[in-house]
Amino acid sequence: MADHDVMDKLVSLCKRRGYIFQSSEIYGGTGSVWDYGPLGVELKRNVKDLWWSAMVHQRDDVEGLDAAILMHPRVWEASGHVDGFTDPLVECGNCHRRFRADLPEVAGGQCPSCGTRDAFGEARSFNLMFKTFMGPVEEEASTIYLRPETAQGSYVNFLNIQGAARQRVPFGIAQIGKAFRNEITPGNFIFRTREFEQMELQFFVEPGTDDEWFDRWLDTRMKWHLSLGIREEKLRVHPHGPDELAHYAKKAVDIEYEYPFGWKEFEGVHNRTDFDLGRHQEYSGKRLEYIEPGTNRRFLPYVIETAVGVDRTMLVALVDAYREESVEGEERVVLALHPRLAPVKAAVFPLVKKDGLPEVARKLHDELRAATIPSFYDEAGSIGRRYRRQDETGTPWCITVDGQTLEDDSVTIRDRDSLEQVRVGLSQVRGWIRERLDDA
Amino acid sequence: MADHDVMDKLVSLCKRRGYIFQSSEIYGGTGSVWDYGPLGVELKRNVKDLWWSAMVHQRDDVEGLDAAILMHPRVWEASGHVDGFTDPLVECGNCHRRFRADLPEVAGGQCPSCGTRDAFGEARSFNLMFKTFMGPVEEEASTIYLRPETAQGSYVNFLNIQGAARQRVPFGIAQIGKAFRNEITPGNFIFRTREFEQMELQFFVEPGTDDEWFDRWLDTRMKWHLSLGIREEKLRVHPHGPDELAHYAKKAVDIEYEYPFGWKEFEGVHNRTDFDLGRHQEYSGKRLEYIEPGTNRRFLPYVIETAVGVDRTMLVALVDAYREESVEGEERVVLALHPRLAPVKAAVFPLVKKDGLPEVARKLHDELRAATIPSFYDEAGSIGRRYRRQDETGTPWCITVDGQTLEDDSVTIRDRDSLEQVRVGLSQVRGWIRERLDDA
Repeated sequence: MADHDVMDKLVSLCKRRGYIFQSSEIYGGTGSVWDYGPLGVELKRNVKDLWWSAMVHQRDDVEGLDAAILMHPRVWEASGHVDGFTDPLVECGNCHRRFRADLPEVAGGQCPSCGTRDAFGEARSFNLMFKTFMGPVEEEASTIYLRPETAQGSYVNFLNIQGAARQRVPFGIAQIGKAFRNEITPGNFIFRTREFEQMELQFFVEPGTDDEWFDRWLDTRMKWHLSLGIREEKLRVHPHGPDELAHYAKKAVDIEYEYPFGWKEFEGVHNRTDFDLGRHQEYSGKRLEYIEPGTNRRFLPYVIETAVGVDRTMLVALVDAYREESVEGEERVVLALHPRLAPVKAAVFPLVKKDGLPEVARKLHDELRAATIPSFYDEAGSIGRRYRRQDETGTPWCITVDGQTLEDDSVTIRDRDSLEQVRVGLSQVRGWIRERLDDA
Repeated sequence: MADHDVMDKLVSLCKRRGYIFQSSEIYGGTGSVWDYGPLGVELKRNVKDLWWSAMVHQRDDVEGLDAAILMHPRVWEASGHVDGFTDPLVECGNCHRRFRADLPEVAGGQCPSCGTRDAFGEARSFNLMFKTFMGPVEEEASTIYLRPETAQGSYVNFLNIQGAARQRVPFGIAQIGKAFRNEITPGNFIFRTREFEQMELQFFVEPGTDDEWFDRWLDTRMKWHLSLGIREEKLRVHPHGPDELAHYAKKAVDIEYEYPFGWKEFEGVHNRTDFDLGRHQEYSGKRLEYIEPGTNRRFLPYVIETAVGVDRTMLVALVDAYREESVEGEERVVLALHPRLAPVKAAVFPLVKKDGLPEVARKLHDELRAATIPSFYDEAGSIGRRYRRQDETGTPWCITVDGQTLEDDSVTIRDRDSLEQVRVGLSQVRGWIRERLDDA
């Protein structure tokens, strides 16, 4: 299976099953913006909930935050984004389309759109922040930006949160939220989009302990990806060389994943030093130093950042889970998603639509749902066809109510990956699934 | 306690305890934009999770969706927002500030800012949608809008979702997501903000059954608010008169809440007829009719919409829960939040910081947290002070480990509202809390 085939097939499956649709499709689509359908929104919720649980709920040293997308424009002057968050852009003198100057074709001198050679004008800086206007006057004073990252919200709230939560350094601020970048060349499905959702941790540490915390967070994050069932051989660590380092960073590594289109960034771990707090202190005129209880020593903490996209995590999970297999002489497509990520945990089928089997199956479905186990009821089509639909959906367990159920109150549970079937008592199903989810 | 006092006190409590901070506060704030701190983000999560559970997970006839904020610009022409989503705006000829023409002071002829009389120019229409520019060219063709509601995402995805989820009318599409309105006069804390989060259901029904479904959804939504513990006498239903009805609506009611600043909208329930699907059909040139299985009858469904703000629900929950009480000769402030809404369910205290009590308390805290019961450990200050902090936080149960714990493995659990204290075995605490959360 060629690699570009995998992406095409995945995009198609995602639309067919209701994971991901093109935004405003009936109007021809919105460039590189995607909508998450019934299954996609559940996968997204699972990704976010697992991150939040690991990063906030299960720790005493991280506080949550949900800062707004719209921030004061000075924030982006202080952060360096107004001046520096740019791509070099050139325009073709023939077709007037614009491209990133660092694209290989463009650097080679030939327009990727009309093919004209050496017709590019001089490169100019193009700022990637979306801008808009707040208040009833569209003039310079009211220009604001859609945030390109959530990090700055954590920095400007650093002392508010430290005080309200009575935290002591080292501690972190975690955020999940939308961010926007007016990318010139987005693409690869949901890999790089103009609207996306970030999961970011800013962890504030005493200078001198930053290298140790950097290593610790890199390790923690790598383990988290593995806990989602991502294959270890598809993950690697790429440290940034001196020429790749952002202006604010002392050290940075990408956790990379081998997508069908190659090894690319998955998550970033950065030592941002005291750059951001220092700049906000300078631009706001407010002291942002941490005062150590007991000693009253004041210092600007260093920041270790971990930043990963929700959408990109979903793409990795989907790509990593996509399989085409030959089973018992038939082809099947299966999304072998980790059970905790799977949007639907259990599908309940009556073998036939008679003899009271639908009623028993529906009752079980209702019970699972009431126990907050996402369940799907399906009585349409042959049992084989129903299995295949759930394989594509990524449902780990299919439960069939059959004739024997009426005799001994047992059902069959089919495992998506091993295809093994076991008989379990009706009253045990809920516990059986819960146990496997907890152990997964 | 005067009503404006309540709001001032609530804003102050929300900042002090880490519920809500002003956005970009160190830069003087961003107009009517707010950040949710460590407690606020958990309250927000609880509001959203309870809505999603009731509206999506516990129903077979509603599918979830997470459509993007950025949509094709034609969407807003079809919806009527480009032409009609406007407020009348006047400018004072003296101070040049701008106001909604329908403000009472403005209608009276006197500038609310500088006091000049009769200096207003003619009213003009001001569109409330934030606009921005997508792609590397800032020109008309690339102007797009930040969505002012999530509803349109459900309409343009109607057939995609109906097909992928194999739903039959009647069924609904539910969304939670950010929306933006460039309000001329926002205010009242998080009541009306320029950036906000919506929880919206679009329920597609056969024409002729719309009145019945309207009543059913109004009833369902009212019951949901009551299930959050909102006081019934603070809720009322306000049907829109003919002159209040939106252009797309056949019928609309507001569920209103009595805020400290008066009776105002809390949630809207609307019969939007087939207006939106019809317009999108017209503007996109794509057929959006539902084809009834079996009969192959084609029709455009009517839409019953329920729309409520996450932020507004949080404000109602906070306002409704805010109490100042005299208890045992001392004043206390308590947030009597419904236990399912409370950000922290249990606080665990060692009575004193010695004799091994902190170790026992920490162990209990860790156990609760591992069992996904949000818990907070606190050993700082007198026990009375710790209780008061948790009362302000809205924590339903405070658990104290004391000398007797070392003898008989029991702890005291104090109820936030009744102030009753009971002794419970250490190993029973988890079940004791879980049971009360499930029954709440």
